Amino acid sequence: MKSYRRELWFEVPTRRALVNITGEVERCLRESGIREGLLLCNAMHITASVFVNDDEAGLHADFEQWLEGLAPEKPYARYRHNAGEDNADAHLKRTIMGREVVVAVTQGKLDFGPWERIFYGEFDGRRRKRVLVKIIGE
Amino acid sequence: MKSYRRELWFEVPTRRALVNITGEVERCLRESGIREGLLLCNAMHITASVFVNDDEAGLHADFEQWLEGLAPEKPYARYRHNAGEDNADAHLKRTIMGREVVVAVTQGKLDFGPWERIFYGEFDGRRRKRVLVKIIGE
Amino acid sequence: MKSYRRELWFEVPTRRALVNITGEVERCLRESGIREGLLLCNAMHITASVFVNDDEAGLHADFEQWLEGLAPEKPYARYRHNAGEDNADAHLKRTIMGREVVVAVTQGKLDFGPWERIFYGEFDGRRRKRVLVKIIGE
Repeated sequence: MKSYRRELWFEVPTRRALVNITGEVERCLRESGIREGLLLCNAMHITASVFVNDDEAGLHADFEQWLEGLAPEKPYARYRHNAGEDNADAHLKRTIMGREVVVAVTQGKLDFGPWERIFYGEFDGRRRKRVLVKIIGE
Repeated sequence: MKSYRRELWFEVPTRRALVNITGEVERCLRESGIREGLLLCNAMHITASVFVNDDEAGLHADFEQWLEGLAPEKPYARYRHNAGEDNADAHLKRTIMGREVVVAVTQGKLDFGPWERIFYGEFDGRRRKRVLVKIIGE
Repeated sequence: MKSYRRELWFEVPTRRALVNITGEVERCLRESGIREGLLLCNAMHITASVFVNDDEAGLHADFEQWLEGLAPEKPYARYRHNAGEDNADAHLKRTIMGREVVVAVTQGKLDFGPWERIFYGEFDGRRRKRVLVKIIGE
């Protein structure tokens, strides 16, 4: 069994953003040399997400509006976590979007359907944050 | 290390449905011959879900009503993604329900609690769509 | 390839609670002797969750209030599942919070960011329930 590990670093200039990281994850997979196995990609921060969906700007605007409806950023005082913090909504938004994806590796490639892309979902940006890529297989 | 891959195909005749696929996933596991490892089962489409819950019709009706409350199908114009599309709600519903499950394989079986069953959640049906089963172990 | 399996048992005295189980999962990992691989931790019950977030009491109060807003416990009759049951809301809350986490194992440790902790989320407690820890690697 082979294993591979790499951190991807991001510094998103806005509080929230969805970043397509499929190419970076594919580079990790090539570098690993693993042909058959499982790839884990997860946010290492609890106010960010890694998820699979469509790379379509309209949908991303819908996600922004929908998440703000389900877990509004403001007023900050609506959340007990926001005593010295202002990011409680980011914890909730990341919960909806998910911490991680596990992707099959087949014949050296991400075994994806036609529209599957991996995104980093930032909900409390303007600082350096990390995503972990771990691959096991052979 | 052994690895196994199979696609399961579905064509749900309605826009939305929850389909118990536990038996099909168990057949994959038997066919793989893998006794100890991890099984990944994921929707290959971004408007469908694979999740674990209870096979109880009342609960499934509750899921339908609850998801329509959180991410209504209509009016279609409420979503920016719906320019030429009408399935933005399906992307959001699948986000709530999840893309994938990872299940332990122990002694050649899905290592489940008493009520755990695997479902395919279709949110934009009436077309052929796929689920991936990938198993690694030995 | 090595594999390891253990069940963790809980009997939460209230209907709902969030329990930090990071230490117990770390004990499993040490016991396994696995240095590189993947660790799956999942609720074996469909009214409970395993998730990663922050160990902060204010945030946990926010989760409670937020989940009650998204999927209220009462009135019980609002859910079709509640014919002889009263836990439909627990199925929905667990869906939001997630069934499982997959964690990278690197150099014999949970490969976590600085604030990542594993929680058992109980949404229908006052009975004995289980979490599964499965680790594969070498």
